[in-house]
Amino acid sequence: MEESETFLHNGWYVIAMSQEVTRDLLPRMVLNEPLVMYRTQAGVPVVLEDYCPHRLLPLSKGCVVGDGVQCGYHGMQFDPNGHCINIPGEERIPRDLKVRRYPVVEKHRWIYAWMGKPELADPKLIPEYADPTESAGWHHVSGLFPARCNYLLILDNIMDLSHLAFVHAGSVGDASIADKAVVETSTQGDRVRVVRRTCNVPAASTYAHFGKYRGNIDRWQVTEYAPPAFFLVNNGSKPTAPTPPSEGDVSGNGMWGFQVYHAITPETENTSHDFWTIGAPVEMLPADAREKFKNTMEGILDEDRGVYDAQQKAVEAKSPLGRAGRVQSRIALKGDKALVAARRVLQTKINADRRGVAGK
Amino acid sequence: MEESETFLHNGWYVIAMSQEVTRDLLPRMVLNEPLVMYRTQAGVPVVLEDYCPHRLLPLSKGCVVGDGVQCGYHGMQFDPNGHCINIPGEERIPRDLKVRRYPVVEKHRWIYAWMGKPELADPKLIPEYADPTESAGWHHVSGLFPARCNYLLILDNIMDLSHLAFVHAGSVGDASIADKAVVETSTQGDRVRVVRRTCNVPAASTYAHFGKYRGNIDRWQVTEYAPPAFFLVNNGSKPTAPTPPSEGDVSGNGMWGFQVYHAITPETENTSHDFWTIGAPVEMLPADAREKFKNTMEGILDEDRGVYDAQQKAVEAKSPLGRAGRVQSRIALKGDKALVAARRVLQTKINADRRGVAGK
Amino acid sequence: MEESETFLHNGWYVIAMSQEVTRDLLPRMVLNEPLVMYRTQAGVPVVLEDYCPHRLLPLSKGCVVGDGVQCGYHGMQFDPNGHCINIPGEERIPRDLKVRRYPVVEKHRWIYAWMGKPELADPKLIPEYADPTESAGWHHVSGLFPARCNYLLILDNIMDLSHLAFVHAGSVGDASIADKAVVETSTQGDRVRVVRRTCNVPAASTYAHFGKYRGNIDRWQVTEYAPPAFFLVNNGSKPTAPTPPSEGDVSGNGMWGFQVYHAITPETENTSHDFWTIGAPVEMLPADAREKFKNTMEGILDEDRGVYDAQQKAVEAKSPLGRAGRVQSRIALKGDKALVAARRVLQTKINADRRGVAGK
Repeated sequence: MEESETFLHNGWYVIAMSQEVTRDLLPRMVLNEPLVMYRTQAGVPVVLEDYCPHRLLPLSKGCVVGDGVQCGYHGMQFDPNGHCINIPGEERIPRDLKVRRYPVVEKHRWIYAWMGKPELADPKLIPEYADPTESAGWHHVSGLFPARCNYLLILDNIMDLSHLAFVHAGSVGDASIADKAVVETSTQGDRVRVVRRTCNVPAASTYAHFGKYRGNIDRWQVTEYAPPAFFLVNNGSKPTAPTPPSEGDVSGNGMWGFQVYHAITPETENTSHDFWTIGAPVEMLPADAREKFKNTMEGILDEDRGVYDAQQKAVEAKSPLGRAGRVQSRIALKGDKALVAARRVLQTKINADRRGVAGK
Repeated sequence: MEESETFLHNGWYVIAMSQEVTRDLLPRMVLNEPLVMYRTQAGVPVVLEDYCPHRLLPLSKGCVVGDGVQCGYHGMQFDPNGHCINIPGEERIPRDLKVRRYPVVEKHRWIYAWMGKPELADPKLIPEYADPTESAGWHHVSGLFPARCNYLLILDNIMDLSHLAFVHAGSVGDASIADKAVVETSTQGDRVRVVRRTCNVPAASTYAHFGKYRGNIDRWQVTEYAPPAFFLVNNGSKPTAPTPPSEGDVSGNGMWGFQVYHAITPETENTSHDFWTIGAPVEMLPADAREKFKNTMEGILDEDRGVYDAQQKAVEAKSPLGRAGRVQSRIALKGDKALVAARRVLQTKINADRRGVAGK
Repeated sequence: MEESETFLHNGWYVIAMSQEVTRDLLPRMVLNEPLVMYRTQAGVPVVLEDYCPHRLLPLSKGCVVGDGVQCGYHGMQFDPNGHCINIPGEERIPRDLKVRRYPVVEKHRWIYAWMGKPELADPKLIPEYADPTESAGWHHVSGLFPARCNYLLILDNIMDLSHLAFVHAGSVGDASIADKAVVETSTQGDRVRVVRRTCNVPAASTYAHFGKYRGNIDRWQVTEYAPPAFFLVNNGSKPTAPTPPSEGDVSGNGMWGFQVYHAITPETENTSHDFWTIGAPVEMLPADAREKFKNTMEGILDEDRGVYDAQQKAVEAKSPLGRAGRVQSRIALKGDKALVAARRVLQTKINADRRGVAGK
């Protein structure tokens, strides 16, 4: 189908925060497919296609009955595997009467669903992520933000952090982030890693405030991408020193820093779900600083969403370019290296997907 | 035209309630065609296409002048037959300057229009309907409700009343309506009749309240379909008896019951006009019960409209299925027998229509 | 491109009122192209395409820096000619990295842009217009009104002023304007001129009020069209006389009258910008009459916009006719002569445009 050519189907996607999925039915559109979620009596999350096969009423308009779901129109019941187990008034249940069931994993306080062929759904393909929410030493804030854009525009954003100098100039960015950063990009298998070191620069306002810096700092941003669309950005800083931050330095947060994790899930070709978690070591974020940290970080995500919205509208209006997936091919800048690499990794997997090869 | 393939053009449709059509111009979209209605000085209803042929301004933006209508842009006047009778500032009126006139019949307190070839517009093709509004012995409520769906989804709803058990579980339905009904479907010419008998069951709440039942009841629902989309549902009940309700019983209302009549008119492929009348014998609905009866019935229609809206959105989203007209072909259940029969009757007429054969 | 076949690209269009264009960025859609405007430090207006070529973020989301504009995403800077002059973090600027610049002329208190090939942008092609705003002897009101229609529907409106009898019956029109006018249409080169003389008629209410007429009047309306879509309407009147108003009379305003100027600029195929100025000789409009004059004139423009909106919706709904550009070809009336002539002039230029010939 033309509309879904930018989607990798054989992949895990975060489709909900754990606390959103209860004994009530929760509908959500993912990769243009309507899903409905709930938990069984034992608390196991279930994800089904959100259509009754009889007359297409969304199952989410019905209710949970036992461990299954009952359509709100003529009462058909389906078990957690999607098999029809009751049709009021009928003696016989057609053998092929079922709804699609999606493989599910609950991890990192999120619900992951596999959107491709069920037999390929290997939980080991979910990227490792040392969830700060589960580590005693981290304070975190998290949420789900809707983004009015194709998910690849978010990939572009995160893989080129020079935008902090302009989009987030009032908080985590200043001109030096674009002008002075030394950037290294590397690809290993299907992972892309970008290390940005910006040395001997004034602390951007958020760093000055929370890190209590008085002089110049060295700063690093390490972005790790895993397909389809998982992004871990480790941010750290310390007072400037004669030698740039080492590999050891950049794997931690130095004197002050934080981690940003995005699990981006396409909703449609033009809209996305941004599941995000931002955490900082508790000693870098005392209790009285947390409210302001949360507001600052949510403000930053809002600034990005303003960009996405305007950029997506432009992409849709500009017919000769057409699709968000092709925006990046127009000019090649040094700063685009990481996002080009990440898109290439993803496109390779999408192409393999289309040829029917496993997404591994 | 692809978009109108589910419409029967050579057919009568209710396009307004009598009281809506006055000396003011009333616009309404019917079968994707814009109509404008008014009454002549003698009170005769007139239905014209709602475009001035000169510059396409809707005639409904103009005004009634005498027995005709005057365009609000350059003042062209058309008589009730749609012929242009005046063009300000012009000496000559082009011979072919006219707007389309639709054959009209006023009956059952409704305005019917014939949407196909005028020469085929036989008033006898309007289904007989013993309008409770005109019989002294009946109390009625009626109205026009917009439905956000293709009209065939309404046909499906009314022809399979097992949905009362789920959509209307709080009023006229309970589980027995789906589980225990004995259903007989018959087709005669272009009419489809379904008789549902549900015996020795507790009275659903609406029946218990208005019928004042204390014990189990026998209940019947008789639906009669006439194309394009007229539906009479006769509902009746009585205390349960050793033998099921007879044919004589089910043609009346027993101890308590009511009649529902729907004249469904497509507005577009995705929206419909639901002209409805619900009546009950006056002795079954004393004056102090009527307000609650009206509220109950309108609540039930609202529940159906919630289903239509969700179902239509699902139909539009689910591209492989595409059109509302094809929803019904997916699986064949016993409960679908009547709606399959009604759709078949209608499709036969639509096919004949397309081949240019009279719709009789 | 199919969608723009009714647009003349090699032409001047008013895209803003002078006072709208400042040191802040102003976005506006013109001929389906997104433009961004601002002034240099010296006050010179600049018009660029409103896309950053890097990732398509509208430049209007960025800011003015010096005489250029800086993208709000990654900080690319462009000079007033559209050339990229800085990319933060990059040593090299790709040679072809630029945004489209549009030729600009500031005149008549408006900003004109040339939407076609820059080398054909001859300022002399802007129609002469004795802007009443710049003459000491005139009082004027002016503005920019959005119109929800293809710009050709506005052309049709202005070139056939018989509509005053119906659309503006409460102010500048009465039946005589349609019934009694003697109309002469002439075409010279790419200009179309229509003279309407309506003699010995009661004064329409606006004329009676402002002109203080007690008896019948002679009235004239002279419309001059210049492509793509400039319209000057000179209105005048005097007490009725035995001989009709002379050529000399109709070039002035007589005892009471006013001028209306419209510069119509397509926004999209379905929407337009109506830049308008209405002026009257100061002696015909004493200070205490000006508020009412302004309200009357804006009310008239609102009445026209009501027609445009309804007409455009009808054009879009009526698929067999399809496009606004073709509405006029259906029937040929005497009153349509001027608009047919104006459309022919314009179509000739559009055709030449398409063949790559200069628009002169």
